[in-house]
Amino acid sequence: MPAREPASPRGRGDSVRPATSTRLDSYADRYAARTHGMTASEIRALFSVASRPEVVSLAGGMPNISGLPLDAVAESLRDLVTSRGTVAMQYGSGQGDPELREQICEVMRLEGIQAHPDDVCVTVGSQQAVDLVTRIFCDPGDVVLAEAPSYVGALGVFRAYECDVVHVQTDDDGLVPQALRETVSAVHASGRRIKMVYTIPNFHNPAGVTLTAARRSEILDLCAEHDLLVLEDNPYGLLGFGGEALRALRADDAERVVYLGSFSKTFAPGFRVGWALAPHAVREKLVLAQEAATLCPPTFSQLAVSSYLRTCDWQGQIKQFTEMYRERRDALLSALTEQMPAGSRWTRPDGGFYVWMTLPAGLDAKAMLPRAVTARVAYVPGTAFYADGTGNRHLRLSYCYPTPARIVEGVHRLASVLEQEVELRATFGVSPPRSAGRYDAPGTGVS
Amino acid sequence: MPAREPASPRGRGDSVRPATSTRLDSYADRYAARTHGMTASEIRALFSVASRPEVVSLAGGMPNISGLPLDAVAESLRDLVTSRGTVAMQYGSGQGDPELREQICEVMRLEGIQAHPDDVCVTVGSQQAVDLVTRIFCDPGDVVLAEAPSYVGALGVFRAYECDVVHVQTDDDGLVPQALRETVSAVHASGRRIKMVYTIPNFHNPAGVTLTAARRSEILDLCAEHDLLVLEDNPYGLLGFGGEALRALRADDAERVVYLGSFSKTFAPGFRVGWALAPHAVREKLVLAQEAATLCPPTFSQLAVSSYLRTCDWQGQIKQFTEMYRERRDALLSALTEQMPAGSRWTRPDGGFYVWMTLPAGLDAKAMLPRAVTARVAYVPGTAFYADGTGNRHLRLSYCYPTPARIVEGVHRLASVLEQEVELRATFGVSPPRSAGRYDAPGTGVS
Repeated sequence: MPAREPASPRGRGDSVRPATSTRLDSYADRYAARTHGMTASEIRALFSVASRPEVVSLAGGMPNISGLPLDAVAESLRDLVTSRGTVAMQYGSGQGDPELREQICEVMRLEGIQAHPDDVCVTVGSQQAVDLVTRIFCDPGDVVLAEAPSYVGALGVFRAYECDVVHVQTDDDGLVPQALRETVSAVHASGRRIKMVYTIPNFHNPAGVTLTAARRSEILDLCAEHDLLVLEDNPYGLLGFGGEALRALRADDAERVVYLGSFSKTFAPGFRVGWALAPHAVREKLVLAQEAATLCPPTFSQLAVSSYLRTCDWQGQIKQFTEMYRERRDALLSALTEQMPAGSRWTRPDGGFYVWMTLPAGLDAKAMLPRAVTARVAYVPGTAFYADGTGNRHLRLSYCYPTPARIVEGVHRLASVLEQEVELRATFGVSPPRSAGRYDAPGTGVS
Repeated sequence: MPAREPASPRGRGDSVRPATSTRLDSYADRYAARTHGMTASEIRALFSVASRPEVVSLAGGMPNISGLPLDAVAESLRDLVTSRGTVAMQYGSGQGDPELREQICEVMRLEGIQAHPDDVCVTVGSQQAVDLVTRIFCDPGDVVLAEAPSYVGALGVFRAYECDVVHVQTDDDGLVPQALRETVSAVHASGRRIKMVYTIPNFHNPAGVTLTAARRSEILDLCAEHDLLVLEDNPYGLLGFGGEALRALRADDAERVVYLGSFSKTFAPGFRVGWALAPHAVREKLVLAQEAATLCPPTFSQLAVSSYLRTCDWQGQIKQFTEMYRERRDALLSALTEQMPAGSRWTRPDGGFYVWMTLPAGLDAKAMLPRAVTARVAYVPGTAFYADGTGNRHLRLSYCYPTPARIVEGVHRLASVLEQEVELRATFGVSPPRSAGRYDAPGTGVS
């Protein structure tokens, strides 16, 4: 999730004014059908408040990159420009730089993937990979199966292409195979076509859970049985706290899985370098879609990442990142255990950035957010992670960016808000929200 | 137009093979409807041959950036990383960096545009701006009016969104207002809806012509009369050979014109930084579309461009670029005049990268291309620039990348091929192609 927009830099002279800032949208009647689904999040305004320094934000998903070796990166970029500047600043291939694609294959080998660079398509972050895959596969009304909850950015893409997202139950071991089987049957019985199963198997955003090895093969079998394409979105796979990386779904099925990777969390997001690894015919379509979308992904970014991988100890850096994130996860989990009122539950991630929390019965995370921000703590309400408006009893807590001390302070503030809510409800008998979500939610912790 | 993909870097061990390289596309029956229009250009294979050093390529549109001050750029990037690295390598706003958007407004002021940074949306090259504008406005079947010929990259976007492109006659003064009026009437009479008028007013790609000032106001009036949105694509506006930049269409209508700009030709394409300036409500939609597409445009690229504009003499650099391009244009036009056979015509650009050539009656630029490549010269056949398969009597010659001496040699080779074609036709009475294009083409030169 990108940083929110700072206050816009106005005040450069009266002659320079936005064209229609005070008028209604005179274009309202001529947008494409897909555009009507594009609306600014209702919690967006709140987040501009939440970005103030006095607020502890457990909302954002920005990686903490302060540990990067800036001097080494600066030198490698200077060398890149002086030695290969006219290549690095020129157009490149729509598929992406060949050397970087070889390096990407080496990165994926850590997750058991054997792949050829020719089957890799470089994208503008893995967000664009979700966009391009959806673009080539999905017509309006096509069904995409996704975990309940699922990544807000992917849901935004599916909405932009007018897909019909159907959520599948998820628990502490990730996507539930039996639930997937039943959902597939139900969708097929309704006469609709499933175009893909979108899943984040490792350190899920927002659920914080990881798909077990046994379930991985069960899900691959199930998708083979029903001839379903799997979209494996794996930005956090190398950010596990337990040593060796888990084996990717793609490692066991090269024909059925489109795998998405990213350097945003293992290096830095500002270069916007991600990739898709796809069966050859699909990769060809992805490159054509990429050429229509951007001509080519940014050459300079690609060569910058390539230089970093070649000249810096990128695996050592990932180890440093995960140690930092583990410390923050520990701080968050301890603070939750100590401070959250009875009836709260949460997941216990083994990597990545996120904890998924379930509030005591009757509380509504979305309704509570303004009061939390007033108490100087922010989170993302669970409703953001469901395509169907459910999820209001849940919220996502990110431990990636604030320091452990700030995390503890944030939980302290959040616990106070929660206690007030519980008390208010007990005193005035505020009725619980109509639905707490259609799905059993992941989360094992008890207060 | 990006560089073509070099031969793929194979040979890293037998275990690493593309998944389906020898099989048919098992996904063929599940792509989206829009994907069926995405096919690799039939001339693509030829271009991989044309990229060999012994071939003089008058085909590509890569700017010649060898004149950039690499040492200064290298230093500014090193400073950027050491002083603001954790910002430059982090996620940014979906709309783009605020300081860069202010600088973009200063750049646009050179073309008479008064704009506020809040109405600018930064994009991954202006190609992505065409993509996002089309995404928010166009449903399948919507009509886009475009010059005849028009930019191949934009036609690719319109095809990807299943738009119906209707070409409008263009002559040496650009889009013909009377033709636009008649086309609008004809489309309306057919009951279809026109979503926008796509135009490249300055140093047109591929036609090499520039819309006169008188026609600009006539076209704006006409679009106001019919309530049509104008998409003004202006990557070459500051690359004129005649001193002051022409006044943009957007300078005289902030409500009806979406203006697209780019740093790809005034600085360097490898950062992929372009922008859209749009009426406020449209800009809001563009940012939402950008967030779905990429979360945010590359922060590092944006701050790199911003640093360049702040620390280097960017206007002096543009002057140096245009002097180089003018010399190359002169070399091309002189060589054409000296060497082309009777019946050939071509445009005389006052800026930009391209000359549009019309072959003697009966010749076919697409059919001739393999023979030209065999004679070690390459161009782009005119058919690439029409959505309707016409244009085979035309071709685009780019003078931006090869040196003047190479340009002269390329024209020499092309003239030989042309002479052989003319002779062959005279000897064997080869019948002319069925259609030389539905449109009168721009081009004043006579052999």
